Amino acid sequence: MNISNYIKQRQAQIETALQDSLPSGGTRPAILHEAMRYCVLNGGKRIRPVLVLAAAEPFGTPAAAALDAAVAIELFHCSTLVHDDLPCMDDDDLRRGMPTCHVKFGEANAVLTGDALMIHAFQMLAETGNTRLALELAQAAGSRGVIAGQVEDLAAEGQEPNAGLIEFIHINKTAILIRAAVRMGAIAGGAREDELENLGIFGEKIGLAFQIVDDVLDETSTEEVLGKPTGSDLKLRKMTYIAVHGMDAARARIKQLTTEAINALDMLQRETTALRSIAEYLVDREY
Amino acid sequence: MNISNYIKQRQAQIETALQDSLPSGGTRPAILHEAMRYCVLNGGKRIRPVLVLAAAEPFGTPAAAALDAAVAIELFHCSTLVHDDLPCMDDDDLRRGMPTCHVKFGEANAVLTGDALMIHAFQMLAETGNTRLALELAQAAGSRGVIAGQVEDLAAEGQEPNAGLIEFIHINKTAILIRAAVRMGAIAGGAREDELENLGIFGEKIGLAFQIVDDVLDETSTEEVLGKPTGSDLKLRKMTYIAVHGMDAARARIKQLTTEAINALDMLQRETTALRSIAEYLVDREY
Repeated sequence: MNISNYIKQRQAQIETALQDSLPSGGTRPAILHEAMRYCVLNGGKRIRPVLVLAAAEPFGTPAAAALDAAVAIELFHCSTLVHDDLPCMDDDDLRRGMPTCHVKFGEANAVLTGDALMIHAFQMLAETGNTRLALELAQAAGSRGVIAGQVEDLAAEGQEPNAGLIEFIHINKTAILIRAAVRMGAIAGGAREDELENLGIFGEKIGLAFQIVDDVLDETSTEEVLGKPTGSDLKLRKMTYIAVHGMDAARARIKQLTTEAINALDMLQRETTALRSIAEYLVDREY
Repeated sequence: MNISNYIKQRQAQIETALQDSLPSGGTRPAILHEAMRYCVLNGGKRIRPVLVLAAAEPFGTPAAAALDAAVAIELFHCSTLVHDDLPCMDDDDLRRGMPTCHVKFGEANAVLTGDALMIHAFQMLAETGNTRLALELAQAAGSRGVIAGQVEDLAAEGQEPNAGLIEFIHINKTAILIRAAVRMGAIAGGAREDELENLGIFGEKIGLAFQIVDDVLDETSTEEVLGKPTGSDLKLRKMTYIAVHGMDAARARIKQLTTEAINALDMLQRETTALRSIAEYLVDREY
């Protein structure tokens, strides 16, 4: 399998679905709908929705519910980025080289754009008619998931490195949503409970590995390679895996998590070449 | 029917359900869960959830799904208040005489508390197993509903009075969610499509009337009677029904909307004494 082509095809499918799912920029209020489109249709890598589609495929799913779930998880992810960039949070002016939402549309509209994207994600899931999809996203996204990770990440800035805390932040801020992406794809595909269990383990492990790779790249890569400024973790005094455990331990942990993720996949006894290749692709970025 | 007792009983039931629905204040991250409880368990009047329960009752519903829907709509409503109070929005320091969320817990935590409450609302609805409830809330809440109303309300500050604009703001910022409350109760109760239609009209009319009463009270009442500062619309240069149409027209419109609402109820040919009494109670505040 040429994983790079596989991902490109799925990205194109997701891009079209995202465009179709959002109200046109002229819909009243125009500024809100323009902002929603600006913050979603921005050339993102679509890692989470690609995982949704790849996790549905082993079950021979019809595309519709999986594609809706893929769109929903990306809309939710974009909503968190809009709020994370706010002046009272990470105070970022640029994302992917473009002005962030509050810089372009004002702070109040950025808060409301994030809210609208979040609600739109749950609307997409409600329209599938399957409440298990919304339940999966809500449990991963909420106060015991992504939002919990974000709260502790902000509180950790400038604090002493702490192994328990960095694990909590990485699991909740990143891994739990990647786990949800994989499980939502499998739910849309009609997976059994034991299969969901194994795919959940796969998703959490690659989610953690993905975040540690991000921490490594922030220290070792260049702005040219990453397409975003490096060293921002140090600047914001963010707690990273490297600050706590060092670079060698970080690289070893990435390898170990990838192995554990692929072991969980193998338990499935389904055709999961695409999921495995995506996992390897995600950790095999230049570091 | 003693409507005041009826409302008090339902409020008590909702209060208990809200308390039970929120994670305990000690759940990690403690500051987030404390903030969520602080912003919900604050002595609110619970108008929307009372309407959910009252709209379910004519259909002899079992309480469970209606109570979950009631909790969800109040959680969503509270999330919008937390975000509305932010410095970049209405910049309010006090709500019900207590410090607002960002004053007490910091601005970043207030953004995230609003997010968490919004997600929790959709989690409650997903747990009912009925996607129609989540669809109803999402459609009313999103970029073509409550969030649209909020965007245009902020943009209208300081602008010339405009009849079309004030109608758009009132419908979207207030009436659409009250309409959703009534419809969600009826959906949980198992109403037919034509019944939902009539109840939707009832909800929208009393929602609009309720907002115009609010505008009237902001100009005519006192802080002692309302329990909140009056004249804030003038101070913020908010566009109100009175600024556009004058006080006499406002009072006439409230009467007309109430009549239309009750006519829509009468079409139902169900036992709707409670809904009618709540409608009268909502517009019969001191003005």
